[in-house]
Amino acid sequence: MGRNNSKIIELAKGFNNFYFKHLQTPPATTPGYTRLTIPQGNSTPHVVIGLLTPQILENLSPWQPHFILRNKNLEFTPKNPEKRTEIFHEILLDWKEKGLFHLDKTWRGENFEIKPGSHYTSDSTPPLFTLDRSATPLFGLRQFGVHVNGFVRKPSGLSLWLQKRSGNREMWPGFFDNLVGGGLSTKNTIITTATKESSEEASIPSDYLMENLKPAGAVSFFYESNYGLFPNTEFVFDLELSEDFEPSNNDGEVEGFVLVTVEEAMEIVKSSKFKTTSCPVILDFLVRHGFINSFNEPQLPQLLPLLHMPLDMFYTSNHGNY
Amino acid sequence: MGRNNSKIIELAKGFNNFYFKHLQTPPATTPGYTRLTIPQGNSTPHVVIGLLTPQILENLSPWQPHFILRNKNLEFTPKNPEKRTEIFHEILLDWKEKGLFHLDKTWRGENFEIKPGSHYTSDSTPPLFTLDRSATPLFGLRQFGVHVNGFVRKPSGLSLWLQKRSGNREMWPGFFDNLVGGGLSTKNTIITTATKESSEEASIPSDYLMENLKPAGAVSFFYESNYGLFPNTEFVFDLELSEDFEPSNNDGEVEGFVLVTVEEAMEIVKSSKFKTTSCPVILDFLVRHGFINSFNEPQLPQLLPLLHMPLDMFYTSNHGNY
Repeated sequence: MGRNNSKIIELAKGFNNFYFKHLQTPPATTPGYTRLTIPQGNSTPHVVIGLLTPQILENLSPWQPHFILRNKNLEFTPKNPEKRTEIFHEILLDWKEKGLFHLDKTWRGENFEIKPGSHYTSDSTPPLFTLDRSATPLFGLRQFGVHVNGFVRKPSGLSLWLQKRSGNREMWPGFFDNLVGGGLSTKNTIITTATKESSEEASIPSDYLMENLKPAGAVSFFYESNYGLFPNTEFVFDLELSEDFEPSNNDGEVEGFVLVTVEEAMEIVKSSKFKTTSCPVILDFLVRHGFINSFNEPQLPQLLPLLHMPLDMFYTSNHGNY
Repeated sequence: MGRNNSKIIELAKGFNNFYFKHLQTPPATTPGYTRLTIPQGNSTPHVVIGLLTPQILENLSPWQPHFILRNKNLEFTPKNPEKRTEIFHEILLDWKEKGLFHLDKTWRGENFEIKPGSHYTSDSTPPLFTLDRSATPLFGLRQFGVHVNGFVRKPSGLSLWLQKRSGNREMWPGFFDNLVGGGLSTKNTIITTATKESSEEASIPSDYLMENLKPAGAVSFFYESNYGLFPNTEFVFDLELSEDFEPSNNDGEVEGFVLVTVEEAMEIVKSSKFKTTSCPVILDFLVRHGFINSFNEPQLPQLLPLLHMPLDMFYTSNHGNY
């Protein structure tokens, strides 16, 4: 309990001591949802890894020997990562064949590692198991990714490079998006993902990237759609580009790129033509750079917590235990 | 319910739709604390304005005709702002004379306006009542302020101007603090407060300020100390200063100023010599400018929600109603 926290986290818990004293754990009282946990032996609290809707719970029943429903938790009992990965793979292939939960369309062939508690982005922590990225929303598993805000400083002001997603994509076809974005997957660290996606999605030279990419925090939010739950965290980077650079796409997932003024970007975001789950990143950019401020957005104090949701509340086995 | 929200807030609620579906209202189940509310007529929910400890509740009993305890809420019944202000003034003078709750030492002679719900920083919304700023923590009333991060870009890297608070101050004597900080009080808007405090605390010329002050968001946190509860929101500004400018103090509340490197600032913050309730502002600065990042702080996704706490959860009369 807090033993592995950095000094900075302990400090931040300190100036929120009242909050922690009274922090609730919503899933315990979230009607209709079941927590997916991995038992850790008798004396250790279970690791909470996901949230399940009644439909998902029902469709897991054929694999019941591996799952035990107890105290609103569905305990996933296999003891080792290989066995867990094998069972999830079997479940997902079965559902995909039956055309359940859009899996036939969303399947990515991209492995995603599930890690315990606050170690999900630690390279040295072994994964609890691995599954296809497309399945993470079905089990309410936390997802982590990287987004890059590409911008140009012109004499007339700041402009943003936006991506227009290909109309052929299953998820958010034809929607606007940030310049570059991608999920963390097996063996790819945050910086590797940022470099790889910037090269594949927007043809940004990696030497330019390494020199100019600026870390600028992270956003977290909790979205639900027909495709499942999205308790997502995106690591955010800013990238200043020169006026003569023009991004181009290499992987067929992008229709094109547009350079827009901050005002135009704001209108696109408000028009619902921007991918909903990428909005937190661009809104955070606009706040950090002073374009959304207390003068033009009186609800600024409400907006910021919505870009930085305390998702750990949903994934702790007891109150505020991190 | 949401009728007065801006498009941006509605969007941000949209990508947190799961969170809102299951948002709890902690005060309803916070043992030992009583919510302070102002009734709004039969069909309208009460406005929740504060949280009271058992000691405060007990000491309010002589004024019982004006307060009704019902359903874990203490309803403050007077119908008009003048009457409410008058009663609170009477209570506070009485407590101050009796030496209760440190009021003899913390009294500021600075009026603070209490406004309903999300209108607390709106100039056009009339206050529910007014009281001395020193009393806001006693009743768990939300406080709003302005902080300015002053920094200098040197060839060797970025440096920060920190304030060292006077050893004579009642609150946080001798602690380090951000360059400028001050609470919003009656008749002072966010920008007026930033200008006034920058001039009084650090002698920054107001024309330089108007040209160079950059809005950079806000932080929110919930701290408790012997002085009471601090559900605080600070509007954050960055101010780049030239290498030859040196801040100086005009109001006797500051011992001096030091220009430190980012690394030195980080050490001071970690050493607990930095005013606890000002830490969120400097940590937010260090994150936005990339000095605290996912590479040197693996718990970055935990840190950010602690700088942007959803305080509205504690001050809504029903679930997620804003």
